[in-house]
Amino acid sequence: MPGASLTLKPALDAIGKAIDQRFDRLLPVPEDSRARLFEAMRHAAIGGGKRMRPLLVVAACDLFHVDRERALRVAMAIECIHVYSLIHDDLPCMDDDDMRRGKPTVHKAFDEATAVLAGDSLHDLAYDILADAATHEDPFVRLELIQALSAASGPMGMAGGQMMDLVAGDALYDLGAVTRLQQLKTGALIGFCLEAGGIMGGIADGQRTPLRGYARDLGLAFQIADDLLDVEGTEAAAGKALRKDEEAGKATFVSLLGLERARTQAQMLIDQAILHLASFGQEADLLRAIARFAIERDR
Amino acid sequence: MPGASLTLKPALDAIGKAIDQRFDRLLPVPEDSRARLFEAMRHAAIGGGKRMRPLLVVAACDLFHVDRERALRVAMAIECIHVYSLIHDDLPCMDDDDMRRGKPTVHKAFDEATAVLAGDSLHDLAYDILADAATHEDPFVRLELIQALSAASGPMGMAGGQMMDLVAGDALYDLGAVTRLQQLKTGALIGFCLEAGGIMGGIADGQRTPLRGYARDLGLAFQIADDLLDVEGTEAAAGKALRKDEEAGKATFVSLLGLERARTQAQMLIDQAILHLASFGQEADLLRAIARFAIERDR
Repeated sequence: MPGASLTLKPALDAIGKAIDQRFDRLLPVPEDSRARLFEAMRHAAIGGGKRMRPLLVVAACDLFHVDRERALRVAMAIECIHVYSLIHDDLPCMDDDDMRRGKPTVHKAFDEATAVLAGDSLHDLAYDILADAATHEDPFVRLELIQALSAASGPMGMAGGQMMDLVAGDALYDLGAVTRLQQLKTGALIGFCLEAGGIMGGIADGQRTPLRGYARDLGLAFQIADDLLDVEGTEAAAGKALRKDEEAGKATFVSLLGLERARTQAQMLIDQAILHLASFGQEADLLRAIARFAIERDR
Repeated sequence: MPGASLTLKPALDAIGKAIDQRFDRLLPVPEDSRARLFEAMRHAAIGGGKRMRPLLVVAACDLFHVDRERALRVAMAIECIHVYSLIHDDLPCMDDDDMRRGKPTVHKAFDEATAVLAGDSLHDLAYDILADAATHEDPFVRLELIQALSAASGPMGMAGGQMMDLVAGDALYDLGAVTRLQQLKTGALIGFCLEAGGIMGGIADGQRTPLRGYARDLGLAFQIADDLLDVEGTEAAAGKALRKDEEAGKATFVSLLGLERARTQAQMLIDQAILHLASFGQEADLLRAIARFAIERDR
């Protein structure tokens, strides 16, 4: 389906612009020695990335006709968490990456200590945005979002997945273990994006099964596509170093399944993700377009 | 006043035990490769430190007869933030410390990447505790606590102060600048501890002036005492490396004021802190005892 990414292009452009504008407003540089910290946060947060997670929040909110402004506030919170995790992930003691989103990583453009603090600060900012009374969100909605975010981001979610990934260097992971690792490392935050739509849409916990099914399948397809990109892509297009997993001898979906089966598996997951949306009409079109886009990025 | 720390001893013992028990319950080690992350969190969080910040929350709650169990939940959140900040502060790229609270720092006992993730995870845990519906706290109270915490911990608070401290290596700070730096780096979290008492006690924003005055004076006295300890103390008693500021050529209250004037200044600030409590009776005795204890620690 070569047209799918074309369909998504205006939505990606719009969300990119909206997120950049909001970060610019949210991070004015103070006139004292904290300036360096804010400059580092801006370097990481503004002008880069596909903003897939913010777009997922907006698309999930579309399902329940949640106002775009409300969706964008939560989208900012999840992007703060994503950017913080990238900054810390890129540190020399973690993945040791020099480039990210086509720019030097924060510890390269600034220094390691500033990178640690910039990540920590964006981490706080995410919760600050969700708690903010200015959201006019019902207080129970705000609290449920905060709890869902801490579960997705913390030691049983994303951070736990990163720990598994670190330990993976010494262990031999099979397909089940790699799936579990990725469901935490990248899947937990993607799960939050969909869950947020349900929470803001006032959908009861028991009614969120299609959202969770979509998120799970999309998250895995997304990761397989990332693994494929790591093998087949160019560093210029990806904006970061590639083929690091292979060098480190880490098990990935591609190393475990082979190129051909990995591709088939990703396509199957995307078909499945879209099937979870069967009970929705046009209001799910953006989620469907995102799913198709997930496996045809930047090749 | 040699009797002051004796008065505080039972309270310090009780809070230490309560916090340890709660961390033990809160951080069960999972049976997968996330285990290492939880072990690192437990290493940092359990069995160490004077638990001054939790004790301050409890003491501030005493002022308004807030139930001890409610106070302890918020005390756990602030201790999570404090411990996360110590883990990241101790990293080689930050203060590069090998010992903390008489034990190897997390990156020494584990590794740097695990230390980054353990800090990040405790950071999430703090917000999770405050948002938790199980607190039975009014939702507006929970949200106000979360916003106060993110302001105290984030880039305009503690993290901003740490940035100032990093930049200080290259700049010549005078007394005003060092005061401002410390009011953010250590003062912001101390301010939160007192503010939390006011929030949970249902005290209107405009009525919290004595709490803020006490916190500001105590925070500075605490830091001067720390600077004095850094010059006069023993590493065995402090449980960490000392005299690092002097080696780094950093301006401190002691280097700027001299020993004698620093001591007088700390005493004056403590007298002032206690004066802010003049309108309270016995219910402020714990806060008074903490203030006196602040300048006679571990010599």
